[in-house]
Amino acid sequence: MRERLARYLPCLEWARQYDREAAGKDGLAAVIVTLMLIPQSLAYAMLAGLPPVTGLYASILPLLAYTLFGTSRALAVGPVAVVSLMTAAALGPLFAAGSAEYAGAALLLAMLSGAMLLLMAVLRLGFLANFLSHPVISGFISASGILIALGQLKHILGIQASGEHAIELLQGLLLGLPATHLPTLAIGGSSLVFLFLVRNKLSGWLQAAGFTPRLAGNLSKAGPVVALLASVLAVSLLGLADAGVRVVGAVPTGLPAFSLPPLDLGLATQLLPAALLISLIGFVESVSVAQTLAAKRRQRIEPNQELIALGSANVAAALSGGFPVTGGFARSVVNFDAGAQTPLAGALTAVGIAITVLFFTPLFHNLPQAVLAATIIVAVLSLVDLGALKRTWRYSRQDAAAMVATMLGVLLVGVEAGILLGVGLSLLLFLWRTSQPHMAVVGQLPGSEHFRNIERFAVVESPKVLSVRVDESLYFPNARYLEDHIAALVSQHPEVEHLVLMCPAVNLIDASALESLEAISVRLKVGGIQLHLSEVKGPVMDRLRQSDFLEHFGGKVFISQFEALAELDPQTTHHALSLRRHGLAGSPLPLKPTVQESDSEKRP
Amino acid sequence: MRERLARYLPCLEWARQYDREAAGKDGLAAVIVTLMLIPQSLAYAMLAGLPPVTGLYASILPLLAYTLFGTSRALAVGPVAVVSLMTAAALGPLFAAGSAEYAGAALLLAMLSGAMLLLMAVLRLGFLANFLSHPVISGFISASGILIALGQLKHILGIQASGEHAIELLQGLLLGLPATHLPTLAIGGSSLVFLFLVRNKLSGWLQAAGFTPRLAGNLSKAGPVVALLASVLAVSLLGLADAGVRVVGAVPTGLPAFSLPPLDLGLATQLLPAALLISLIGFVESVSVAQTLAAKRRQRIEPNQELIALGSANVAAALSGGFPVTGGFARSVVNFDAGAQTPLAGALTAVGIAITVLFFTPLFHNLPQAVLAATIIVAVLSLVDLGALKRTWRYSRQDAAAMVATMLGVLLVGVEAGILLGVGLSLLLFLWRTSQPHMAVVGQLPGSEHFRNIERFAVVESPKVLSVRVDESLYFPNARYLEDHIAALVSQHPEVEHLVLMCPAVNLIDASALESLEAISVRLKVGGIQLHLSEVKGPVMDRLRQSDFLEHFGGKVFISQFEALAELDPQTTHHALSLRRHGLAGSPLPLKPTVQESDSEKRP
Repeated sequence: MRERLARYLPCLEWARQYDREAAGKDGLAAVIVTLMLIPQSLAYAMLAGLPPVTGLYASILPLLAYTLFGTSRALAVGPVAVVSLMTAAALGPLFAAGSAEYAGAALLLAMLSGAMLLLMAVLRLGFLANFLSHPVISGFISASGILIALGQLKHILGIQASGEHAIELLQGLLLGLPATHLPTLAIGGSSLVFLFLVRNKLSGWLQAAGFTPRLAGNLSKAGPVVALLASVLAVSLLGLADAGVRVVGAVPTGLPAFSLPPLDLGLATQLLPAALLISLIGFVESVSVAQTLAAKRRQRIEPNQELIALGSANVAAALSGGFPVTGGFARSVVNFDAGAQTPLAGALTAVGIAITVLFFTPLFHNLPQAVLAATIIVAVLSLVDLGALKRTWRYSRQDAAAMVATMLGVLLVGVEAGILLGVGLSLLLFLWRTSQPHMAVVGQLPGSEHFRNIERFAVVESPKVLSVRVDESLYFPNARYLEDHIAALVSQHPEVEHLVLMCPAVNLIDASALESLEAISVRLKVGGIQLHLSEVKGPVMDRLRQSDFLEHFGGKVFISQFEALAELDPQTTHHALSLRRHGLAGSPLPLKPTVQESDSEKRP
Repeated sequence: MRERLARYLPCLEWARQYDREAAGKDGLAAVIVTLMLIPQSLAYAMLAGLPPVTGLYASILPLLAYTLFGTSRALAVGPVAVVSLMTAAALGPLFAAGSAEYAGAALLLAMLSGAMLLLMAVLRLGFLANFLSHPVISGFISASGILIALGQLKHILGIQASGEHAIELLQGLLLGLPATHLPTLAIGGSSLVFLFLVRNKLSGWLQAAGFTPRLAGNLSKAGPVVALLASVLAVSLLGLADAGVRVVGAVPTGLPAFSLPPLDLGLATQLLPAALLISLIGFVESVSVAQTLAAKRRQRIEPNQELIALGSANVAAALSGGFPVTGGFARSVVNFDAGAQTPLAGALTAVGIAITVLFFTPLFHNLPQAVLAATIIVAVLSLVDLGALKRTWRYSRQDAAAMVATMLGVLLVGVEAGILLGVGLSLLLFLWRTSQPHMAVVGQLPGSEHFRNIERFAVVESPKVLSVRVDESLYFPNARYLEDHIAALVSQHPEVEHLVLMCPAVNLIDASALESLEAISVRLKVGGIQLHLSEVKGPVMDRLRQSDFLEHFGGKVFISQFEALAELDPQTTHHALSLRRHGLAGSPLPLKPTVQESDSEKRP
C-alpha cells in the first residue's frame, strides 16, 4: 500500500530522508531560480498575449503540483518560451490579445493540456510522444526561436507591427522601421547588449577576477533581474513612460484567486489539437531535460509519472489564473547547478514568487516592455541551433528533409502546421525506409555450419535449396515487398525445389505478413517449390502456433539453417562442410568490399 | 533502347513469341470473360450510380490500355464492385445519381485516379500502398460487401429506399418492406437462387453428369448471361415492365465517343482524397490477384509497371465515358482458368464488349434491375469473409482491432472514414509495438565466446561491464524508450564501469536514435560509465562515420561482444571461457522456459 502510494506520490520517498543539509541547498537554489523566474514569467506571459501577472500566477501552484507528483529532483516547471508561443498561436486567431475571453481561453487550453497529459498517463499513451522524431522537435524549436525573436523586435524598436508568420513579421518590421521610437530603442538595445554579455561573458570575467566558478555562475544568473531593476529605476527617474516608452503598467497585487476555465464545448473542441501538441511538445522537452539532469546523479525519472506531474501542473495553472506550463531547460539547469536536492526547491521557488506577487508587483509598473522583449530574445536565441540542420543533413538526407519541412512550416505557415508537416513527412519516410527490408541470399561458409550473404562472402550455394535471410521484422510496411522480392528471386532460380526463409532477425510477424507468407507458400507450391522457415525466435514461434499457418504451409521449421540444408540437400551441405576449415567457426572470409556508399543510402 | 522500351511496353515482349496456339487459348478465354463481363459491367455501373452503358464503355478502352502496359498475363481489368461502391460514395453526396454532372464527376474521378497511379509510378510511390495493412483491406472488403448487398436488396424487393450507411439502409428496407412489389421479388428472388446454385453447385452437377471439370467450370460461368437472357425474355413476353417491374430501359447503341472530364479545379480538389483511396485500393487488390496468378505459372509481375498500366486504364476510362476501373478478382481467375496466355485475351474481351455495344444493346431494354442486383449480391457476398476476423483475432488482438475499426467505420460511418480509421489505428498500433523493442541483458555462455540473455540461460555476468543486446533497429519510434530503458538498467547496476550495446540486429540508426545515443553516452559519462558498441553492421557503421558520434562518445566499437569483454574485463571473461565446455559452440543451455504467453503479447 505504502509502496503503491509512493509510486504516485514520489514526494513521500524523498521527504522521509529530508534533512537540514538538503534544505539549505534547496533554499539557495530556490532563491536563484526565483530571481531568474520573475523576469521570465512576466516576459513569457507577454509572449503568450496575456497580462504579465498571469506569468507569475503560472509560477506558483503549478510548481507545488510538480513538487508533489514529479520524479525529477531538479526540473523547474513554469512558463516556457515555446509553449507560450504555441499558446499565442492557438488563441491569437480566436480572440483579441489582452481580452477577458483570451485569458479565459488560455485557462481552458491549460486545462485541456493537463487533462490530456493525465489521460495519457492513465492509458499509458506516453508512446504518442514518439511521433515527434528528434529532427522534427529540433527543427520546431529552432524555427520557433527565430519566430519569437522576430515577433519581439517590435518591442525593442518601440513600433506597432503585427503578423503571424516570418514573412509578415519581417514586412511589419521593415514598414515600421521609420517610426522607431528612439528612447525605447535605447533601453531595449542596451538591455539586449547587457543581457548577451551577462549570459555569455560575465561568468568568465568573474572567474578571472577570482570568484569560484559556482559563485560566478550564480551571480551571472541575476543579470535579468538587474536589468529589470535598472530599467525600472531609469524609467521612474527620467520619466520615460511619459516620453512614450511603453511600460507594463499596473500589475495587481495578491495571490491568484481560484478560477475555472470557461466550460465552452465548442471552444474546447477548437482548442483540442493545439492542446494535444502543447502537451506532447511540453512532455518531450521536459522529460529530455529531466533525463539529462537525473543521469548526472545516477537518479531515475519515471516518464509515466512525469505525465501525471506535468498534467497536474497544467490543471493547477488552469485553476489559478495561469496558462500552459512545462519544465524549462535553462531554468532546470540553473536549479541543478545551484544545488537543488529535491523537488522541494520548486515549492520554495513558488513561495518566492508568491512573496513577489504579494509585495513587489508595484515595482513592475514602470518596467519597460522592451526589457522583457530583450529577456525573451536572449533566451530564445540560445534555442536556435542551425548547426543541427547541417549535422543531420550529413548524417541522413531523409531526417534532414523532415527537419527542413518542419522549420519552413513553422516559419512560413504556422506553428501547428509545421509540426504536423514534419510528423507526416517523418512517418512517410519511415514507412518508405522500412518498406524495403534488407534481404540476402545466403550460402554455406566452406568448412563451417554458418551461412552468409552470397554477395559478400565466398560461400557454397545449394542448387536445390534457395536460402534467404530477412534482416527485419515482417509487418505491414514490408509485407508486400517480401512477396515481390521472393517472387523475383524465384523467377531468377527456376531450378530450385525448396526455399528456406532464415528468420534470426525477425522479431515480429504481424497479420499482414502472415497473410503474405501464406500467399507466398501457396504461390511457391503451385510453382513446385516448398517453403520452409529456419531460426524462428521463440515469441514469433509461439504466435505462429496460434494460427493454422504451420499446419497448412507444408514445410518445416528448422532450428538452424545448417539443419535445414543438411536435411534438404545433404550432398551439397556435407561437401561444403568438408572443404578447408578456418580456425574459428563463424569468422567470415570477407572477399568483397563491405558496403558501397550508394547501397547503404538506398537500403538503410 | 529496345530493352528500355520493352520495360515500359511489356506487350513488345510477349508479342514477339505470339503464335496460333496462344491465340486460340486467348480467344476462348476472351469469349468466356466477355459473357461474364456483360452483366457485371451493367450491374456495377448501376452500383456506381451511373447509366448501365457506362459499364460497357469502361470495359473497352481500359482493357486495351492494360493490354499495352500490363505485366500480368491473366489480369482482367474493368469495373469492380468495391471501386464502384467507392465511386458512388464519393459522388453521391455531391450530385444526383443519373445526372449529367454526376457522370462528368465520375469521369473526373477516373482521370484523377489514373493520374495518381501514374504519378506514383514516376515517383516510385508504390510503397504508399503499404499503409493499407492486410487487416484493414480485409475488413474493408468484407464490410463493403455487406454494405453493397444491403444497398441492392431494395432492387430485389422492388421498393424505394435510400441511405448511406448500414443502419440507414436497414431502416429503409424495413420501412419499405410492406410496399414490396411481388412480380419484382419473384424475378429478383428466383435470379438470386439461380445464380447462387450456378455459382456454387452447377460445376459439381455437370461433372457428376460426365463433363470434364474445365468444361463444367466454363459452362457455369455463363450462368449470369443465361439469367439475363431469361429475364429479358420473361419481361418481354409477360409484359412485366408494364406491371411495374423496373427495367434498365433504353441503352444507347454505338461505341463511346471521346470525352473529356469537366476541368473544375474545385471539384477536383474535393474528389482528390477519394481518388487517392480508389487508386490505392484498386492497386493493392489488382496486384495481389496478379501476383497469385503469375505464381501459378512461375511468371512475374512488376508492381511499378502495374501502376502505369492501371493508371493508363483509368485515364482511358475517363476519355471514353467510363468510370474508375481496376483488376477484378473473380474475372481474372476465370480468365486464367479459361486458359488466357497473354494480355491479348483482354484486348479480345474489349472487342467482344465493343461488338455488344454496337449490336446488342437493344436486348437490354427489358432487363430487370432486380436481375442486375442479384448479380451484384451473389458476386459481393463471396467477398465477405467474417472468418478472417476470427483468425486474425486468434493471431493478434491488435491486428483484429484495426480490422474491426475498419469494418465498423465502413458500415456505420462511410467507406472513406472506415479506411482512414483503420489506417490510423494500424499506424498507432504499429508505432506502439515498435516503441518498445526487445532488449536483453546478456552474459557469456560458460566455455564459449557466445553471449545470451541472462533471463533465459545460465551465463556468466561481468561485475564491471553491463552487456545489453538490442533486438531492433534504432529509430524515432523507439529512441526515447532506449534512453529510458538504459537509464533504468544503469540505476539497477550502480557498480558497473562500462556499458556495451550489442547491435547485431540493428539495421538502421536514424538521426533521432543517434541523438539518443549521444545523450545516453553523455549521461553515462557524468555518472562514471563509458558506453561502447559491439557487432555494428557495415551499413550502420558507414553512416555513423558520417557523424561525429564516434569521435566524441569516448568508447570503442568492438567486432564482437567477446572481444569487448576480453578487453574490458579480461579476468571474468577468461574465467568464463575456462568453465566446462559444451559440444558445439553456440548451442545454448536453455535453463528457463522460453517465453511466457503474456510476455510475448506485451513485447512482440
